[in-house]
Amino acid sequence: MSFKQFSSDTDVIAFARQHSDLFSADEPLKVAEIGDGNINFVYRVSGATTSLIIKQALPYIRIIGEGWPLSQDRIRIEAEALQLEAKYCPDLVPKVYHYDAEQCAIVMEDISAFGNLRMAMVQRQKLPLLGEHLGRFLADTLFYTSDLYLDGHAKKALVQRFINPDLCKISEELFFWDPYCDHERNSINEHLRADAEALWQDETLKLEVARLKIKFLNQAESLLHGDLHSGSVFVNESGTKIIDPEFAYVGPAGFDIGSIIGNYVLNIAGQSNLPGDQAERQDYQQWLLADMNTLWNTFSRCYRQHMQAETQDPSLRQAAYAEWYLAELLADSLGYAGTEVIRRTIGLAHVLDIESIEDAQQRTESERLALTLGQLLIKERASFSSIEALTAKLTKQLFCH
Amino acid sequence: MSFKQFSSDTDVIAFARQHSDLFSADEPLKVAEIGDGNINFVYRVSGATTSLIIKQALPYIRIIGEGWPLSQDRIRIEAEALQLEAKYCPDLVPKVYHYDAEQCAIVMEDISAFGNLRMAMVQRQKLPLLGEHLGRFLADTLFYTSDLYLDGHAKKALVQRFINPDLCKISEELFFWDPYCDHERNSINEHLRADAEALWQDETLKLEVARLKIKFLNQAESLLHGDLHSGSVFVNESGTKIIDPEFAYVGPAGFDIGSIIGNYVLNIAGQSNLPGDQAERQDYQQWLLADMNTLWNTFSRCYRQHMQAETQDPSLRQAAYAEWYLAELLADSLGYAGTEVIRRTIGLAHVLDIESIEDAQQRTESERLALTLGQLLIKERASFSSIEALTAKLTKQLFCH
Repeated sequence: MSFKQFSSDTDVIAFARQHSDLFSADEPLKVAEIGDGNINFVYRVSGATTSLIIKQALPYIRIIGEGWPLSQDRIRIEAEALQLEAKYCPDLVPKVYHYDAEQCAIVMEDISAFGNLRMAMVQRQKLPLLGEHLGRFLADTLFYTSDLYLDGHAKKALVQRFINPDLCKISEELFFWDPYCDHERNSINEHLRADAEALWQDETLKLEVARLKIKFLNQAESLLHGDLHSGSVFVNESGTKIIDPEFAYVGPAGFDIGSIIGNYVLNIAGQSNLPGDQAERQDYQQWLLADMNTLWNTFSRCYRQHMQAETQDPSLRQAAYAEWYLAELLADSLGYAGTEVIRRTIGLAHVLDIESIEDAQQRTESERLALTLGQLLIKERASFSSIEALTAKLTKQLFCH
Repeated sequence: MSFKQFSSDTDVIAFARQHSDLFSADEPLKVAEIGDGNINFVYRVSGATTSLIIKQALPYIRIIGEGWPLSQDRIRIEAEALQLEAKYCPDLVPKVYHYDAEQCAIVMEDISAFGNLRMAMVQRQKLPLLGEHLGRFLADTLFYTSDLYLDGHAKKALVQRFINPDLCKISEELFFWDPYCDHERNSINEHLRADAEALWQDETLKLEVARLKIKFLNQAESLLHGDLHSGSVFVNESGTKIIDPEFAYVGPAGFDIGSIIGNYVLNIAGQSNLPGDQAERQDYQQWLLADMNTLWNTFSRCYRQHMQAETQDPSLRQAAYAEWYLAELLADSLGYAGTEVIRRTIGLAHVLDIESIEDAQQRTESERLALTLGQLLIKERASFSSIEALTAKLTKQLFCH
């Protein structure tokens, strides 16, 4: 049997029954096509008391059609990345019940008890465990897939297994070039046009972005999630689930850390003008800044512990190496955070954290703030000796004028 | 037919006749087993007027035997690397006539008109084209296999094709760890023991070596030769041939540049005590320093020209990026040069440039000088704004005391 797109609920239900033992044989099942689904098809199959998710990848981008072909190998990569992540932090990812190479489909845990982090942030939900969970997810997935843990053969096999050119190309272009020139794919608020044009002339900024780009292209450091924005994170009061690692490849660890930090910063920029009481919005900005501290500090504490306990290579086990490495990684992470903030403001794909500001003038203000913070993150990334030094600077930028 | 080690001259001759059109059918051929052959078998097959080389890889290291298995994939890698190098600088590598996957053998051009560079340097031959040829070889091979030239898909396919864990592991250990601890594989002149012990205590040095090691492990920048010491370079008055790229993998460009610069420095250290007239030896040291300038300056001029003319990615085509990149690369190169110098002095494999000093005291002096220069290269690698700044410093170190 070769690849065939599911064409009916019956197909999807049959596939669900065949590849999981969640449902009893005579239990009636129903199917809903869910998901913001820009790229893939995602179905929820529900029985009387339980449900699961089926994700199927087509050989092109769903919302564009056959005009933008995209390798179906991405669904293998997503399945294998989820399984690898589950090995180290099983509580933080949906369980894969079955990966089907032929149908390019994953059958996995339904995480509908969790809500999307981007929505939660727009609604100013404080999530007591968020920074800790994200920090631990990053430390575990980035450490256990690096040369600090794996031997040379295992690491190189990992690089080979996660070569992912189609999806990397999307990031290479959308993060590191489009927003820095007058590209047709950009989406720029007309009131922000002059700001964007000034940015395109900033040679210092463009050099720093080129340095981040070459690292994204070349530095095979850890297996990345590769698309760790707020839309890939699902949350509730007691837990966190991180989904959709189809952009996974072995790249610079700072890219994942920076992507999610960038999404905190985007929400911070949005909160300056989102609807609601000012005190409440400012309070939420402060919560976000504090949670960024928690995220990085959890990450670096866990990472350091892993290195002390589990790094075998004696040349990389030195305490001085860990300190140097984490300082470098903080700088990288802030740089990538800056590229995420900028590409979400003047590039192709914007975020609800800012887009949901209805008043054009106010939205422009938040976008301008985002551009300012994005540039600061990129240009000054190597000047922060700790995450607190950064969040103190952002606090000053936001509240002291 | 599956893999079979050539067991007689008849085997080798039959293979040569089958896979080249150099010889006429009735021409008598003879075989000589040549080569310092630590790892592979190398045969020269000669007819009346012409000859060729056959190199065969066994599934283990020749001089050790089946106790040290080594993937035969290395011979595919060598053949493909030679073919890729030939695409960009055909005059600087031996021509591959045939690669035989089944017999793990390469049939290639005989370069016996050229002599080994290490011997030439021990004998103080000035080679008028050496620095230029090496600089051009490095610029061409490193540029055309990088993201500055290749598109993302082609680059990632290259990474995948040249995953080379067995041979990388040898370098990872011999360059970046053994010499920095009391490792059983080290070979240390007893008079130098105290110097080695002091080096093992130098935490600053060991951190810098760890930084170079992680780059060697992670930075998939360009297809490297991977073993570019003087023994891999063959020379005469009019030409240069670079052989043996079985360690090829996609790694940091500075490793190749640094390996060969390290071999210049090793000869410089040797010349302080090799037999012969002092003025002549000092004159040769100065020639080596000048040729290091030529090598780097040729490399950087060619590389810059390639970037200006052929880099398509607009974000990497910026002039400021080229300047930043070449400054970083000089620092990397000098760091790797330092690791080559140190591992050849207190690690497993030493070099004739120093080993051929018969007097133990004098040999120790040259080894001590090598250790000093190696540490300087590693620790101060980022402080040189040009190759001339380095060679001026080395000149002072050698001649002003």
